[in-house]
Amino acid sequence: MKLKMMYSFLNSDINIIEKALEETIETESLLLRQASMHTLKAGGKRIRPVFVLLAGKFGHYDINVMKDVAVALELIHMGSLVHDDVIDDADLRRGEPTVKAKWDSQTAMYTGDFVFALALKLMANIEKPAAHKILANTMVEVTVGEIQQIKDKYRFNQNFRDYLRRIKRKTALLIAASCQLGAIAAGVEEAVHKKLYFFGYFVGMSFQITDDILDFTATEKELGKPAGSDLLQGNITAPVLFAMENEEIRKEIEKVHEHMAPLEISNIITLIKQSGAIEKSVALSDQYLDKALAILEEIPANKAKKALRDIARFIGRRKF
Amino acid sequence: MKLKMMYSFLNSDINIIEKALEETIETESLLLRQASMHTLKAGGKRIRPVFVLLAGKFGHYDINVMKDVAVALELIHMGSLVHDDVIDDADLRRGEPTVKAKWDSQTAMYTGDFVFALALKLMANIEKPAAHKILANTMVEVTVGEIQQIKDKYRFNQNFRDYLRRIKRKTALLIAASCQLGAIAAGVEEAVHKKLYFFGYFVGMSFQITDDILDFTATEKELGKPAGSDLLQGNITAPVLFAMENEEIRKEIEKVHEHMAPLEISNIITLIKQSGAIEKSVALSDQYLDKALAILEEIPANKAKKALRDIARFIGRRKF
Repeated sequence: MKLKMMYSFLNSDINIIEKALEETIETESLLLRQASMHTLKAGGKRIRPVFVLLAGKFGHYDINVMKDVAVALELIHMGSLVHDDVIDDADLRRGEPTVKAKWDSQTAMYTGDFVFALALKLMANIEKPAAHKILANTMVEVTVGEIQQIKDKYRFNQNFRDYLRRIKRKTALLIAASCQLGAIAAGVEEAVHKKLYFFGYFVGMSFQITDDILDFTATEKELGKPAGSDLLQGNITAPVLFAMENEEIRKEIEKVHEHMAPLEISNIITLIKQSGAIEKSVALSDQYLDKALAILEEIPANKAKKALRDIARFIGRRKF
Repeated sequence: MKLKMMYSFLNSDINIIEKALEETIETESLLLRQASMHTLKAGGKRIRPVFVLLAGKFGHYDINVMKDVAVALELIHMGSLVHDDVIDDADLRRGEPTVKAKWDSQTAMYTGDFVFALALKLMANIEKPAAHKILANTMVEVTVGEIQQIKDKYRFNQNFRDYLRRIKRKTALLIAASCQLGAIAAGVEEAVHKKLYFFGYFVGMSFQITDDILDFTATEKELGKPAGSDLLQGNITAPVLFAMENEEIRKEIEKVHEHMAPLEISNIITLIKQSGAIEKSVALSDQYLDKALAILEEIPANKAKKALRDIARFIGRRKF
């Protein structure tokens, strides 16, 4: 089942968000407009907006209010991807050239700054102090996580604690914030929006672990970049950490460096896949997914709850 | 007279801001902490915090509230400088190595993102919707201005309209926002905080024009970088535009490129200085300064008003 079909009852609102995203990045600067539109059109699952909208369904859902929050969260996500591509010196994302590759690092930096600022402009329409505090805290954590990720590259003596803390900041916190802010914007009571926060957090952890698994198991076509790219760039993810529990594989993995030959890295990927590390990583992802689903049981039933459950399962177990 | 003596009655509060700036950038990430502290310690006139505090004196001044706004505005300024240095590929600022030079572009990018996010966190304590809207709008404009500045480099057929719009976004809007947000945080009525906005805007224009003049007239020691650096980097400022009104000087200026020999650029600087362009630029700066002082006359008299007047005169006519 496709993600879009899964939230079919949101469909017209998803289209509103898509249109609002395009309208928001309109600016007199041709360069900023083109670079932002390029990033927007490169796609993405729009998971954050969907979570914003679904969380809003637990309160007074007004699409004109929800729209601002949904677009803001997607823009923050977009901005962080654009900045990440500068750091990773990445030329491709989802099979498309990155802003950094199509233009340059400078343009990528200001495009990121621009979409961040646009997000704040939209969020400023939400006159709920708690929302601003949560968003600002999230953005601080995300940035600390990003710099940590640079420092942790090729650092083979890191452990699961390092990894989990990194993906929390890199991915889970913004998904958690999407759920919580959607709920707050719709006036959902604190007891419920806090649960939605934890739901988003656990889904986000499961989502990122799955992403990290797919870097090994999916094809280049599905990924839009060569398999094993994360490892080649020095990102030590769950499958790598599990594989390194075997001393011999660990020695091989420790040889990984930026300019490793394709055949060599391909051999190491095979070693990791044969080590049982993928299965262990799937189990880890499932643990988070189960926690997410359990929390969902504690909040009132409605149509959105079913959709949240389906989407959580989908993104935690997707094939690409 | 030194700037610090000029706002002597704010002195203890300025120290509180300085301390709060240091405390705010505390983080578990050593790299982010060092890079942020480096930028902080590189100095700066702290003009934006001073304007925040002085504007607050027109309302219910509570240093605990004003502090958050003052620190936030300085952090936003700091963040934009750090990002600018990546773009300009600048190795020195105020005689100190830039973050980009001391570490690298990646660190500079995330340090900028980090201090921006910290600024939002502090601003989130100000539960006034108007403040968030003004700040977000300012940040959008500043970013558009930054990308415009890249595009306008070495574009010798630009005019004063391009230049003034650029410095408005680059400098004046953030100083205007500092004045207005300081006032709003202190509950100053709209009629007055709007005037403070325009005061800040005009002061900011005068300030930037003066800055652009100093690039030609100050010594390398005073500037902390070689004189004429702006022009060498392709920034077409007021003195350059005035000098280009002379066709022969224009032809010489149009030869400027990034790798021009020091003697050649030095000859062009001499031409510009002898053309009367400096005097015309000073007159332009004074026009904005006069507008700022005129607006000040329209708002209630108090101790802060005198300080605002003194500081406006100082920064519009400073020697370095």
